[in-house]
Amino acid sequence: MSDWLPSLITETPEQGYDLAIKLSRVAVKKTQPDADIRERLREAYENDAGQLIAVSHVVAVHFSTIAKANHYWRDATGDET
Amino acid sequence: MSDWLPSLITETPEQGYDLAIKLSRVAVKKTQPDADIRERLREAYENDAGQLIAVSHVVAVHFSTIAKANHYWRDATGDET
Amino acid sequence: MSDWLPSLITETPEQGYDLAIKLSRVAVKKTQPDADIRERLREAYENDAGQLIAVSHVVAVHFSTIAKANHYWRDATGDET
Amino acid sequence: MSDWLPSLITETPEQGYDLAIKLSRVAVKKTQPDADIRERLREAYENDAGQLIAVSHVVAVHFSTIAKANHYWRDATGDET
Amino acid sequence: MSDWLPSLITETPEQGYDLAIKLSRVAVKKTQPDADIRERLREAYENDAGQLIAVSHVVAVHFSTIAKANHYWRDATGDET
Amino acid sequence: MSDWLPSLITETPEQGYDLAIKLSRVAVKKTQPDADIRERLREAYENDAGQLIAVSHVVAVHFSTIAKANHYWRDATGDET
Repeated sequence: MSDWLPSLITETPEQGYDLAIKLSRVAVKKTQPDADIRERLREAYENDAGQLIAVSHVVAVHFSTIAKANHYWRDATGDET
Repeated sequence: MSDWLPSLITETPEQGYDLAIKLSRVAVKKTQPDADIRERLREAYENDAGQLIAVSHVVAVHFSTIAKANHYWRDATGDET
Repeated sequence: MSDWLPSLITETPEQGYDLAIKLSRVAVKKTQPDADIRERLREAYENDAGQLIAVSHVVAVHFSTIAKANHYWRDATGDET
Repeated sequence: MSDWLPSLITETPEQGYDLAIKLSRVAVKKTQPDADIRERLREAYENDAGQLIAVSHVVAVHFSTIAKANHYWRDATGDET
Repeated sequence: MSDWLPSLITETPEQGYDLAIKLSRVAVKKTQPDADIRERLREAYENDAGQLIAVSHVVAVHFSTIAKANHYWRDATGDET
Repeated sequence: MSDWLPSLITETPEQGYDLAIKLSRVAVKKTQPDADIRERLREAYENDAGQLIAVSHVVAVHFSTIAKANHYWRDATGDET
């Protein structure tokens, strides 16, 4: 598992958010490397509101870091929609 | 699910707060993509004080990020009420 | 529910703290809009030490944001007591 | 309950830490204003390791805010011991 | 219990980490001053993975504060090993 | 256990992430020094989704600190893949 995080810089806030989700998962993967066990655990927490909120909390912390790294994408035009 | 987050910049603190709520929900959606299951979970956590407080915590973290991105809306006049 | 947050700027640290409490409650209100259910939940968590501490945690995160927005009220004289 | 927080500025890190403890308690007090109930809850959480750690977490967040407000007391000499 | 925190400045990151552990414990001590009760609680949480992780979380928050106070020890050479 | 943290500076974001994992573990180690007990606890939390998410949360806080210490590795080219 190498070269999975070349940079915190992303082009858009959405990509930054997706990177935050990725960062939140890697710690789980590195703590429980067995993919089968993780799959079983995933089925459990995907159906548990409290754990989904806990996941969202971890994503929020990483997103804060990534947003800062990208100067909050302040130069993004915002008219890509 | 694309173009859901064009920018962290909002016109008012209230819009920033609403964006924080949105950011807290997207991680749940991306972790549990099944809308029916989410609906069932929502009924559960909406009636659980502990989980509502946990949701509020995630919103607080995102609001912090968004507030910084907007320089705390310091130039807002505050007389819109 | 509009114009509830015209600004993060407050005159004193105490007002900033009260605003932090308000911010922590709005997310609950927006997630569970039914006032009767919230009232029932409130009776429960008001008597649960763990949940009161969790509330205090959310307030701490918002207070951090508000304190920064106000430059920590460093120019406040501190002799209002 | 007024004038309880005239300033975030303290002379020493220790006073800042004590203020952080105070800030963590006020949110509880404002959420559960009944002193008798709080006293009963206090007896419970004082004997619960998990809740003591949760209290310590809230203190840590407030201490971070206060430390920043005081520029980390960098000019303190540190030779008062 | 006085003069226990003369400064947040430490010579090395390791000393900063140790100070973070100390800061996480003092809040517990100040909330539950009875050393015998704390000893009993300690035996419990030392054998509870969830509470050890919670302790580590509090340490992480304090370490963040201390690292900032020390400008992340950026001038440390890193070749002391 | 000395010289385990000579610096917060790392060459790449990945090394920073690994350091964050290390920092999250050391607090556990210093709180529960008995390696046998830790091994037993590890088997438990490795199979508990909630605790894996809690571990990931602690890593997120440390990663935020380390990312700041490294100016978010903004000068990293990102083409090492």
